[in-house]
Amino acid sequence: MLYDVIIIGAGPAGITSAIYAARKGMKVIITCKELEFGGKVINNILVKNYPGIKEITGFDLATRFKEHLKEIEFALEEDEVKNITVGKNTFNIKTSLKILKGKTIIIATGSEPKSLNIEGEEKYKNKGVSYCATCDSSLFFNRVVAVIGGSYTAAYTILQMSSISRKVYAINRFNKFEIDSNLLSKIHSLGSVKIFNNSDLLAIEGNDVVKKIRFIQNNIERSIKVDGVFINVGYTPQSDLVKNIVKINEKSEIIVDSKNMTNVRGIFAAGDCTNSPYKQIIIAAAEGANAALGAFEYISNLM
Amino acid sequence: MLYDVIIIGAGPAGITSAIYAARKGMKVIITCKELEFGGKVINNILVKNYPGIKEITGFDLATRFKEHLKEIEFALEEDEVKNITVGKNTFNIKTSLKILKGKTIIIATGSEPKSLNIEGEEKYKNKGVSYCATCDSSLFFNRVVAVIGGSYTAAYTILQMSSISRKVYAINRFNKFEIDSNLLSKIHSLGSVKIFNNSDLLAIEGNDVVKKIRFIQNNIERSIKVDGVFINVGYTPQSDLVKNIVKINEKSEIIVDSKNMTNVRGIFAAGDCTNSPYKQIIIAAAEGANAALGAFEYISNLM
Repeated sequence: MLYDVIIIGAGPAGITSAIYAARKGMKVIITCKELEFGGKVINNILVKNYPGIKEITGFDLATRFKEHLKEIEFALEEDEVKNITVGKNTFNIKTSLKILKGKTIIIATGSEPKSLNIEGEEKYKNKGVSYCATCDSSLFFNRVVAVIGGSYTAAYTILQMSSISRKVYAINRFNKFEIDSNLLSKIHSLGSVKIFNNSDLLAIEGNDVVKKIRFIQNNIERSIKVDGVFINVGYTPQSDLVKNIVKINEKSEIIVDSKNMTNVRGIFAAGDCTNSPYKQIIIAAAEGANAALGAFEYISNLM
Repeated sequence: MLYDVIIIGAGPAGITSAIYAARKGMKVIITCKELEFGGKVINNILVKNYPGIKEITGFDLATRFKEHLKEIEFALEEDEVKNITVGKNTFNIKTSLKILKGKTIIIATGSEPKSLNIEGEEKYKNKGVSYCATCDSSLFFNRVVAVIGGSYTAAYTILQMSSISRKVYAINRFNKFEIDSNLLSKIHSLGSVKIFNNSDLLAIEGNDVVKKIRFIQNNIERSIKVDGVFINVGYTPQSDLVKNIVKINEKSEIIVDSKNMTNVRGIFAAGDCTNSPYKQIIIAAAEGANAALGAFEYISNLM
């Protein structure tokens, strides 16, 4: 079977590109890692900036995207892509079990949470260190946690954990949170939350599990006891799969043109893995549409 | 009052930019022509490719966008913008009644239906010639109409008019309709529809109102009696307001960068009036988000 388009990734970008490609009559297959169908939207507590939908949980929005796919014809392969080889007019995508052949590829692999690369972080992964409150909050019921970061993601983690944990320490490298004033007031009003701005995390320590963190604030080193650490310091684009095939920039973002095509004809990219400056659900979805329309033009020999 | 951003236009691009700008704490005013609040989305019979919403009428989608605006603070000025003057760090926007001052502008004026520029078209505007079936279909109950064009817009007009008019003649310049096979079969199956492919409209004739059309098919000139003509042959970007201020391309599209900024710092553009290749609701919305985030960076002196 030769597919018109193989879509790698099934978040807002991948799903939208499937909808657009199928509506153009293209033969579509979506590949994604197991349990990642729907993408990382699910990690958003509450989405209030997807236009046309005033307020929705990330889980519900992911469900709506998946529901939309029921309107089109497509194949789904829930298996990790191991490598991609570029043929003359086709591409081979090797998963653990299969080789898929396509005329075009759309890379919609998104991004993964960034590591701080500090002492103890790797050692205590899943032993108290987490990157996703939506996934792991319940592990810290009535415990003490630290939340690292100063963005919306960190703020929502603080908000969520304040109603689950006994105490939340917020460690923010900058002098204030980069969030709107309503959310900021809310966080400051929470009795169980203590905020440390201008603070850098130095190490995560423990025995079998996390026991404390060390951080530095205004040149003074401090240490506090915690049971868990949520690290929310941004995302890294997932471009490893194609970094030796297409051009990426210094941030590891895949460089795309106005039709979301990479420098390799027939390979497109969309969503958080590309070099578009702002990472937003609505923008990822639009890039998926754009890439699919580009892929259609490409296989129709119009570009 | 000095606004952080003046948004000109209130379709998906303008509304989304308002949502994003207000959520960033910016002082926002939207200007749009009277009765155009909500934009031209309303002219879509049925939208099936706005991801997350499986199927919705254009009217309902426009309503949902407008409802979303109730979540934010913004001013609305329903008045036509007459001209824009560029100051040192601010812009003046003159409407019929007021002068608005802003640190940034987002042009989200969309596009207007193209004219064919043929004999009788101008003369019979609103006397039988229409560009919008959603707006004017009811005028042709049990009458005979021609639909000009071969796109989705034309196809939906044909579908809609087939249940209202006695007879629908479809005049398409190309050898087939550029639409998906389901919709194509549906149109071909309608008893009241007769399709003329490879056909160019030459003239619209009548007395006080439209009486007939003349067209040419395979070098043979034909004439048929009709009461109405729907012209659906594409759209022209609305860039007249800024064509002497910012760079536009040969299609009259406003040229923008990856943050939707024009070549004039502080002036952004989003949606169907820009040079992004594919005109889609989801893409217009994303460009609105992108422009607002760009404008925020600009007024924060980060760009």
